Amino acid sequence: MSPRSLAERQRDVHIRLRDDIDAWVATADPATGNPNLSPLSFLWSDGVLVFATAETSPTGRNLATTGVVRLGIGLVRDVVLIEGTVVAIPLSELATHLSEAFAAKAGFDPRPLDGFSFFVVTPVRIQAWRDVDELDGRVVMRGGAWLEA
Amino acid sequence: MSPRSLAERQRDVHIRLRDDIDAWVATADPATGNPNLSPLSFLWSDGVLVFATAETSPTGRNLATTGVVRLGIGLVRDVVLIEGTVVAIPLSELATHLSEAFAAKAGFDPRPLDGFSFFVVTPVRIQAWRDVDELDGRVVMRGGAWLEA
Repeated sequence: MSPRSLAERQRDVHIRLRDDIDAWVATADPATGNPNLSPLSFLWSDGVLVFATAETSPTGRNLATTGVVRLGIGLVRDVVLIEGTVVAIPLSELATHLSEAFAAKAGFDPRPLDGFSFFVVTPVRIQAWRDVDELDGRVVMRGGAWLEA
Repeated sequence: MSPRSLAERQRDVHIRLRDDIDAWVATADPATGNPNLSPLSFLWSDGVLVFATAETSPTGRNLATTGVVRLGIGLVRDVVLIEGTVVAIPLSELATHLSEAFAAKAGFDPRPLDGFSFFVVTPVRIQAWRDVDELDGRVVMRGGAWLEA
Protein backbone atom coordinates (compact mmCIF):
# COMPACT_ATOMS: atom_id res chain seq x y z
CA MET A 1 0.00 0.00 0.00
CA SER A 2 1.17 3.50 -0.75
CA PRO A 3 1.26 6.10 2.03
CA ARG A 4 -2.08 7.60 2.85
CA SER A 5 -2.83 11.17 1.95
CA LEU A 6 -3.47 13.74 4.65
CA ALA A 7 -7.20 13.48 4.00
CA GLU A 8 -7.10 9.68 4.27
CA ARG A 9 -5.07 9.83 7.47
CA GLN A 10 -7.41 12.37 8.96
CA ARG A 11 -10.46 10.31 8.04
CA ASP A 12 -8.82 7.24 9.57
CA VAL A 13 -7.99 9.15 12.77
CA HIS A 14 -11.62 10.12 13.08
CA ILE A 15 -12.61 6.48 12.60
CA ARG A 16 -10.16 5.39 15.31
CA LEU A 17 -11.36 8.16 17.64
CA ARG A 18 -14.92 7.07 17.02
CA ASP A 19 -14.47 3.30 17.17
CA ASP A 20 -11.51 2.57 19.47
CA ILE A 21 -12.39 1.87 23.08
CA ASP A 22 -9.12 2.57 24.86
CA ALA A 23 -6.01 4.69 24.54
CA TRP A 24 -2.55 4.54 26.05
CA VAL A 25 -2.35 7.47 28.46
CA ALA A 26 1.16 8.73 29.26
CA THR A 27 1.64 11.15 32.12
CA ALA A 28 4.50 12.23 34.36
CA ASP A 29 4.86 12.79 38.08
CA PRO A 30 6.20 16.35 38.31
CA ALA A 31 7.85 15.70 41.67
CA THR A 32 9.78 12.58 40.75
CA GLY A 33 9.88 12.76 36.95
CA ASN A 34 8.50 9.22 36.79
CA PRO A 35 6.50 8.43 33.66
CA ASN A 36 3.17 6.70 33.88
CA LEU A 37 1.37 4.77 31.13
CA SER A 38 -2.11 3.29 31.44
CA PRO A 39 -4.72 2.10 28.98
CA LEU A 40 -7.98 3.88 29.69
CA SER A 41 -11.32 3.96 27.93
CA PHE A 42 -12.18 7.20 26.23
CA LEU A 43 -15.01 8.96 24.53
CA TRP A 44 -14.44 11.25 21.54
CA SER A 45 -17.16 13.88 21.37
CA ASP A 46 -17.42 17.61 20.85
CA GLY A 47 -13.77 17.74 19.83
CA VAL A 48 -12.40 16.35 23.08
CA LEU A 49 -11.47 12.99 24.56
CA VAL A 50 -13.12 12.15 27.85
CA PHE A 51 -11.55 9.80 30.40
CA ALA A 52 -12.52 8.66 33.88
CA THR A 53 -10.11 7.33 36.44
CA ALA A 54 -9.41 7.46 40.15
CA GLU A 55 -8.14 10.85 41.31
CA THR A 56 -5.67 9.06 43.58
CA SER A 57 -4.26 6.76 40.89
CA PRO A 58 -0.85 7.79 39.49
CA THR A 59 -2.44 8.72 36.18
CA GLY A 60 -5.21 10.64 37.89
CA ARG A 61 -2.82 12.54 40.14
CA ASN A 62 -0.51 13.37 37.25
CA LEU A 63 -3.35 14.43 34.97
CA ALA A 64 -4.70 16.68 37.70
CA THR A 65 -1.42 18.33 38.65
CA THR A 66 0.43 18.66 35.35
CA GLY A 67 -2.37 19.29 32.89
CA VAL A 68 -0.53 17.62 30.05
CA VAL A 69 -0.84 14.13 28.61
CA ARG A 70 0.19 12.05 25.65
CA LEU A 71 -2.06 9.33 24.32
CA GLY A 72 -1.45 6.45 21.97
CA ILE A 73 -4.30 4.83 20.12
CA GLY A 74 -4.37 1.69 18.06
CA LEU A 75 -1.95 -0.89 16.86
CA VAL A 76 1.62 0.25 17.08
CA ARG A 77 2.08 -0.22 13.35
CA ASP A 78 -1.02 1.90 12.84
CA VAL A 79 -0.10 4.76 15.10
CA VAL A 80 -2.25 7.59 16.33
CA LEU A 81 -0.24 9.75 18.71
CA ILE A 82 -2.01 12.57 20.50
CA GLU A 83 -0.59 15.44 22.54
CA GLY A 84 -3.07 17.49 24.45
CA THR A 85 -4.01 19.47 27.46
CA VAL A 86 -6.22 18.04 30.16
CA VAL A 87 -8.57 19.33 32.80
CA ALA A 88 -10.20 17.38 35.62
CA ILE A 89 -13.96 17.72 35.84
CA PRO A 90 -15.93 16.44 38.87
CA LEU A 91 -18.20 13.50 38.08
CA SER A 92 -21.38 15.53 38.52
CA GLU A 93 -20.23 18.49 36.46
CA LEU A 94 -19.57 16.95 33.08
CA ALA A 95 -22.31 17.63 30.54
CA THR A 96 -24.86 14.81 30.80
CA HIS A 97 -24.71 13.89 27.13
CA LEU A 98 -20.96 13.30 27.53
CA SER A 99 -21.16 11.27 30.73
CA GLU A 100 -24.02 9.17 29.33
CA ALA A 101 -22.17 8.53 26.09
CA PHE A 102 -18.98 7.70 27.96
CA ALA A 103 -20.75 5.13 30.12
CA ALA A 104 -22.44 3.54 27.11
CA LYS A 105 -19.23 3.28 25.12
CA ALA A 106 -16.73 2.39 27.85
CA GLY A 107 -19.03 -0.17 29.45
CA PHE A 108 -18.75 1.38 32.88
CA ASP A 109 -20.30 4.44 34.46
CA PRO A 110 -17.87 6.20 36.81
CA ARG A 111 -20.44 8.62 38.23
CA PRO A 112 -21.35 6.56 41.32
CA LEU A 113 -17.71 5.78 42.11
CA ASP A 114 -15.92 7.44 45.02
CA GLY A 115 -12.63 9.03 44.15
CA PHE A 116 -13.15 9.13 40.41
CA SER A 117 -13.03 12.16 38.19
CA PHE A 118 -13.52 12.83 34.52
CA PHE A 119 -10.50 14.10 32.66
CA VAL A 120 -11.16 15.96 29.46
CA VAL A 121 -8.31 16.05 26.97
CA THR A 122 -8.25 18.64 24.24
CA PRO A 123 -5.97 17.46 21.46
CA VAL A 124 -3.40 20.00 20.34
CA ARG A 125 -1.23 17.92 18.02
CA ILE A 126 -2.05 14.62 16.35
CA GLN A 127 0.24 12.44 14.29
CA ALA A 128 -0.81 9.38 12.29
CA TRP A 129 1.41 6.91 10.47
CA ARG A 130 1.66 3.26 9.62
CA ASP A 131 5.19 2.56 8.49
CA VAL A 132 8.38 4.50 7.86
CA ASP A 133 7.13 5.52 4.42
CA GLU A 134 4.45 7.51 6.24
CA LEU A 135 6.72 9.40 8.62
CA ASP A 136 6.71 12.37 6.25
CA GLY A 137 3.39 14.12 6.52
CA ARG A 138 2.35 12.42 9.73
CA VAL A 139 1.00 15.57 11.40
CA VAL A 140 -2.75 15.81 10.90
CA MET A 141 -3.47 18.40 13.61
CA ARG A 142 -1.30 21.31 14.67
CA GLY A 143 -2.12 24.01 17.21
CA GLY A 144 -5.48 22.37 17.80
CA ALA A 145 -6.48 22.70 14.13
CA TRP A 146 -7.01 19.81 11.72
CA LEU A 147 -4.71 20.38 8.75
CA GLU A 148 -7.31 19.08 6.29
CA ALA A 149 -10.30 21.36 6.53
CA MET B 1 -13.53 -16.69 27.58
CA SER B 2 -12.64 -17.10 31.24
CA PRO B 3 -9.73 -15.13 32.70
CA ARG B 4 -6.36 -16.60 31.91
CA SER B 5 -4.34 -18.24 34.64
CA LEU B 6 -1.04 -16.74 35.71
CA ALA B 7 0.80 -19.39 33.68
CA GLU B 8 -1.27 -18.62 30.57
CA ARG B 9 -0.74 -14.88 30.98
CA GLN B 10 2.96 -15.33 31.42
CA ARG B 11 3.18 -17.58 28.36
CA ASP B 12 1.22 -14.99 26.37
CA VAL B 13 3.50 -12.19 27.57
CA HIS B 14 6.48 -14.15 26.35
CA ILE B 15 4.76 -14.63 22.98
CA ARG B 16 4.07 -10.88 22.74
CA LEU B 17 7.62 -10.06 23.77
CA ARG B 18 8.90 -12.46 21.13
CA ASP B 19 6.55 -11.59 18.29
CA ASP B 20 5.52 -7.94 18.71
CA ILE B 21 7.58 -5.44 16.76
CA ASP B 22 6.88 -2.20 18.64
CA ALA B 23 5.99 -0.94 22.08
CA TRP B 24 4.54 2.29 23.44
CA VAL B 25 7.39 3.97 25.32
CA ALA B 26 6.35 6.46 28.00
CA THR B 27 8.97 8.74 29.53
CA ALA B 28 9.00 12.05 31.38
CA ASP B 29 11.09 15.19 31.10
CA PRO B 30 12.39 15.67 34.65
CA ALA B 31 12.79 19.43 34.17
CA THR B 32 9.31 20.20 32.86
CA GLY B 33 7.33 17.17 34.01
CA ASN B 34 6.08 16.69 30.46
CA PRO B 35 5.21 13.12 29.53
CA ASN B 36 6.40 11.61 26.29
CA LEU B 37 4.97 8.62 24.44
CA SER B 38 6.45 7.06 21.32
CA PRO B 39 6.09 3.72 19.57
CA LEU B 40 9.52 2.17 19.12
CA SER B 41 10.71 -1.17 17.83
CA PHE B 42 12.19 -3.47 20.41
CA LEU B 43 14.05 -6.72 20.74
CA TRP B 44 13.40 -9.09 23.63
CA SER B 45 16.49 -11.15 24.38
CA ASP B 46 18.53 -12.20 27.38
CA GLY B 47 15.80 -10.94 29.70
CA VAL B 48 15.87 -7.35 28.49
CA LEU B 49 14.17 -5.18 25.88
CA VAL B 50 16.47 -3.36 23.51
CA PHE B 51 15.51 -0.09 21.82
CA ALA B 52 17.32 2.30 19.53
CA THR B 53 16.43 5.95 19.09
CA ALA B 54 18.05 9.32 18.66
CA GLU B 55 19.78 10.55 21.79
CA THR B 56 18.45 14.04 21.09
CA SER B 57 14.82 13.00 20.64
CA PRO B 58 12.55 13.69 23.64
CA THR B 59 12.29 9.97 24.37
CA GLY B 60 16.04 9.52 24.03
CA ARG B 61 16.83 12.46 26.30
CA ASN B 62 14.32 11.34 28.89
CA LEU B 63 15.48 7.73 28.82
CA ALA B 64 19.06 8.88 29.25
CA THR B 65 18.45 11.31 32.09
CA THR B 66 15.73 9.66 34.15
CA GLY B 67 16.53 5.97 33.82
CA VAL B 68 12.91 4.94 34.13
CA VAL B 69 10.36 4.07 31.49
CA ARG B 70 6.95 2.55 31.07
CA LEU B 71 6.07 0.54 27.99
CA GLY B 72 2.79 -0.63 26.57
CA ILE B 73 2.65 -3.57 24.20
CA GLY B 74 -0.19 -4.86 22.14
CA LEU B 75 -3.80 -4.09 21.59
CA VAL B 76 -5.26 -2.03 24.38
CA ARG B 77 -7.83 -4.73 25.17
CA ASP B 78 -4.94 -7.19 25.36
CA VAL B 79 -2.67 -5.21 27.59
CA VAL B 80 0.95 -5.82 28.46
CA LEU B 81 2.20 -3.01 30.68
CA ILE B 82 5.86 -2.96 31.57
CA GLU B 83 7.71 -0.87 34.15
CA GLY B 84 11.44 -1.04 34.04
CA THR B 85 14.78 0.60 34.39
CA VAL B 86 16.76 1.70 31.38
CA VAL B 87 20.37 2.33 30.53
CA ALA B 88 21.79 3.92 27.38
CA ILE B 89 24.45 1.89 25.61
CA PRO B 90 26.55 3.38 22.77
CA LEU B 91 25.87 1.82 19.38
CA SER B 92 29.24 0.11 19.23
CA GLU B 93 29.12 -1.29 22.75
CA LEU B 94 26.03 -3.46 22.67
CA ALA B 95 26.77 -7.17 22.39
CA THR B 96 26.89 -8.04 18.68
CA HIS B 97 24.31 -10.83 18.92
CA LEU B 98 21.84 -8.27 20.36
CA SER B 99 22.51 -5.53 17.81
CA GLU B 100 22.36 -8.04 14.92
CA ALA B 101 19.11 -9.53 16.19
CA PHE B 102 17.65 -6.07 16.77
CA ALA B 103 18.44 -4.99 13.21
CA ALA B 104 16.98 -8.20 11.77
CA LYS B 105 13.75 -7.92 13.76
CA ALA B 106 13.16 -4.16 13.68
CA GLY B 107 13.97 -3.86 10.00
CA PHE B 108 16.52 -1.12 10.56
CA ASP B 109 20.08 -1.13 11.81
CA PRO B 110 20.83 1.94 13.96
CA ARG B 111 24.55 1.29 14.21
CA PRO B 112 25.61 3.54 11.28
CA LEU B 113 23.32 6.35 12.40
CA ASP B 114 24.68 9.52 13.97
CA GLY B 115 23.07 10.52 17.24
CA PHE B 116 21.46 7.18 17.96
CA SER B 117 21.94 5.06 21.03
CA PHE B 118 20.67 1.72 22.21
CA PHE B 119 18.51 1.78 25.32
CA VAL B 120 18.27 -1.43 27.26
CA VAL B 121 15.23 -1.82 29.44
CA THR B 122 15.20 -4.32 32.26
CA PRO B 123 11.62 -5.09 33.22
CA VAL B 124 10.89 -4.85 36.92
CA ARG B 125 7.10 -5.21 36.97
CA ILE B 126 4.84 -6.60 34.25
CA GLN B 127 1.07 -6.66 34.21
CA ALA B 128 -1.10 -8.48 31.68
CA TRP B 129 -4.85 -8.36 31.29
CA ARG B 130 -7.55 -8.43 28.67
CA ASP B 131 -10.74 -7.20 30.27
CA VAL B 132 -11.97 -6.12 33.68
CA ASP B 133 -12.45 -9.75 34.72
CA GLU B 134 -8.68 -10.10 34.46
CA LEU B 135 -7.74 -7.11 36.61
CA ASP B 136 -7.31 -9.40 39.60
CA GLY B 137 -4.10 -11.32 39.18
CA ARG B 138 -2.70 -9.12 36.46
CA VAL B 139 0.82 -8.95 37.88
CA VAL B 140 3.04 -11.56 36.20
CA MET B 141 6.42 -10.12 37.25
CA ARG B 142 7.29 -8.39 40.51
CA GLY B 143 10.71 -7.14 41.59
CA GLY B 144 12.16 -8.39 38.35
CA ALA B 145 11.02 -11.96 39.00
CA TRP B 146 8.40 -13.85 36.98
CA LEU B 147 5.71 -14.99 39.39
CA GLU B 148 5.26 -18.31 37.56
CA ALA B 149 8.58 -20.11 37.78
